[in-house]
Amino acid sequence: MIKGKQSLSFTQAPFLISSGCVVGSKEAKGPLGKHVDMFNTDDLFGEKTWEAAESTMQKEACVIALGKAHVETEEVRYLFGGDLLRQGIATSMGVETLQIPMFGLYGACSTSGEALALASMAVAAGYGSNLLAVTSSHFGSAEKEFRFPLGYANQRPLSAQWTVTGSGAFLVGTAKSHVRVAGVTVGKIVDYGLKDSQNMGACMAPAATDTIVQNFIDFGRGPEDYDRIITGDLGKIGRTILWDLAEKKGYQLKEKHLDCGLLIYDHEKQDTHAGGSGCGCAAVTLSAYILPKLAKGEWKRVLFVPTGALLSTVSFNEGESVPGIAHGIVLEHC
Amino acid sequence: MIKGKQSLSFTQAPFLISSGCVVGSKEAKGPLGKHVDMFNTDDLFGEKTWEAAESTMQKEACVIALGKAHVETEEVRYLFGGDLLRQGIATSMGVETLQIPMFGLYGACSTSGEALALASMAVAAGYGSNLLAVTSSHFGSAEKEFRFPLGYANQRPLSAQWTVTGSGAFLVGTAKSHVRVAGVTVGKIVDYGLKDSQNMGACMAPAATDTIVQNFIDFGRGPEDYDRIITGDLGKIGRTILWDLAEKKGYQLKEKHLDCGLLIYDHEKQDTHAGGSGCGCAAVTLSAYILPKLAKGEWKRVLFVPTGALLSTVSFNEGESVPGIAHGIVLEHC
Repeated sequence: MIKGKQSLSFTQAPFLISSGCVVGSKEAKGPLGKHVDMFNTDDLFGEKTWEAAESTMQKEACVIALGKAHVETEEVRYLFGGDLLRQGIATSMGVETLQIPMFGLYGACSTSGEALALASMAVAAGYGSNLLAVTSSHFGSAEKEFRFPLGYANQRPLSAQWTVTGSGAFLVGTAKSHVRVAGVTVGKIVDYGLKDSQNMGACMAPAATDTIVQNFIDFGRGPEDYDRIITGDLGKIGRTILWDLAEKKGYQLKEKHLDCGLLIYDHEKQDTHAGGSGCGCAAVTLSAYILPKLAKGEWKRVLFVPTGALLSTVSFNEGESVPGIAHGIVLEHC
Repeated sequence: MIKGKQSLSFTQAPFLISSGCVVGSKEAKGPLGKHVDMFNTDDLFGEKTWEAAESTMQKEACVIALGKAHVETEEVRYLFGGDLLRQGIATSMGVETLQIPMFGLYGACSTSGEALALASMAVAAGYGSNLLAVTSSHFGSAEKEFRFPLGYANQRPLSAQWTVTGSGAFLVGTAKSHVRVAGVTVGKIVDYGLKDSQNMGACMAPAATDTIVQNFIDFGRGPEDYDRIITGDLGKIGRTILWDLAEKKGYQLKEKHLDCGLLIYDHEKQDTHAGGSGCGCAAVTLSAYILPKLAKGEWKRVLFVPTGALLSTVSFNEGESVPGIAHGIVLEHC
């Protein structure tokens, strides 16, 4: 079960039974737009605030994932969920009506990996046969939380990333499907001392490198053992830093590497600068793009590595650096 | 393993090997002051900000817990941690230097229960033989986060609670000790529609009732099967609501019930209004007061129920209610 220093390999690997994803208007117009389950044109999803809209996305993503698997909410034993907002309010308000016993998480944009890891660990341990993992982010609520309210029309440097308006929910359990969670590599906090909150790709790249390399060591693998290694939201800048750092450790990642932040938008046309980001970015890309390829067998084994930048407006204002964290999820076709 | 609707009973129950707790000056002068491991007179712990002070408390609490058990940080497989601050920054900055693979959590003041539940679930599943669960809160950082900076000299209603400056860390694992985590009852979000963020005891009491009653049902027990049922921070007002709600469901809790928020301060002399609160409140009380009694066998079985109020300044300003959550941890002398 225990693999190396930071990883777990599941002898009875849990299945990723179904998923649901909900996005906003910009994401719906992007390259993954035709693959999502639901989108909304005004990004408010019938609510009055960005925060309530984000909560509604989470709830809808869960309901869609459960609907696809014909599983009732009462049959879901535990839920693992999180978002980017202070005190995880999008999750608390979003999953409240589902009335599933829940664990609130915070791992910045790595939270989808954290939720999938914990849900898989719980299923593999026999703690339930249907568990939900859900995360979300919203451009409007995130700009308000971390930068300025949208009405301020803040200018963004080219290194900045665009927070994805979207939520992805995953039903992890014992019912057979064509994708299973074979193992996890739990990330540790990695801090290279960077302080630029408008260049989060650079802040997160060292953590992504650390987790990916640790996964190789723990499982006795290399890039050649994965069809794809897919990070959460390193974007254009973070991606090249990951390649460079991994190369220094003896691994060539470029050929096998994709980044959800670069898959979800058409960066030339959609003006999203360094790429997409947010808890919703990796979750939506996993649901809409990665899982279908794994289910069909087009990819046999993928290392999915959501990445998070651990900062708040308070830590930023107090001059703290922005450490990163990344969790690795080994997904296999079966 | 699975017990009833929301609970788990561990066949190989993990041990609470050791704990460490660190508090501020007010807590050191309170009834539990003589039992804590470390305190500081200016509440800054050598740092320049309340947030950095809170991080330092978390790190120190972990180091103390590990020191008591003669376990090195490298031997700790995973850490589960959280705090009250936006984006859990006290935890990210606090545990960074320990370099233990970690899961960031958010469950408001219930986080110590959430961390203990997940750490115990992971140990019982064989995912590691030494895991850490740590939480913290700080009066200075919490007032700034949720209400006003201390310099503003804000007036507080009598229903308000005093955020504990403190951190508690727990080493959960397979090495034998005199206290074990026999089971957990994972809480769900309970919302009675209350909106008064200055009366959080009332907001959390329905969730505490829900989890305690569910624990009774899942394990086929009643109050008579526990030496004590100890909630996190309901305070004076929440306590009576819990008693009333439980009585309506057929359970008399008053005789067996204690509340960490009422144990940690001398309310007559320390002017803490309805009682203590915060992620540190239940954690410090568990470490300094509850665990020693369990270890000695003075109490044989305790239901420890940290309670959380799920709000942020944003949700409050947007007129949302304050739902609650509570997780139940069954602790047994062995």
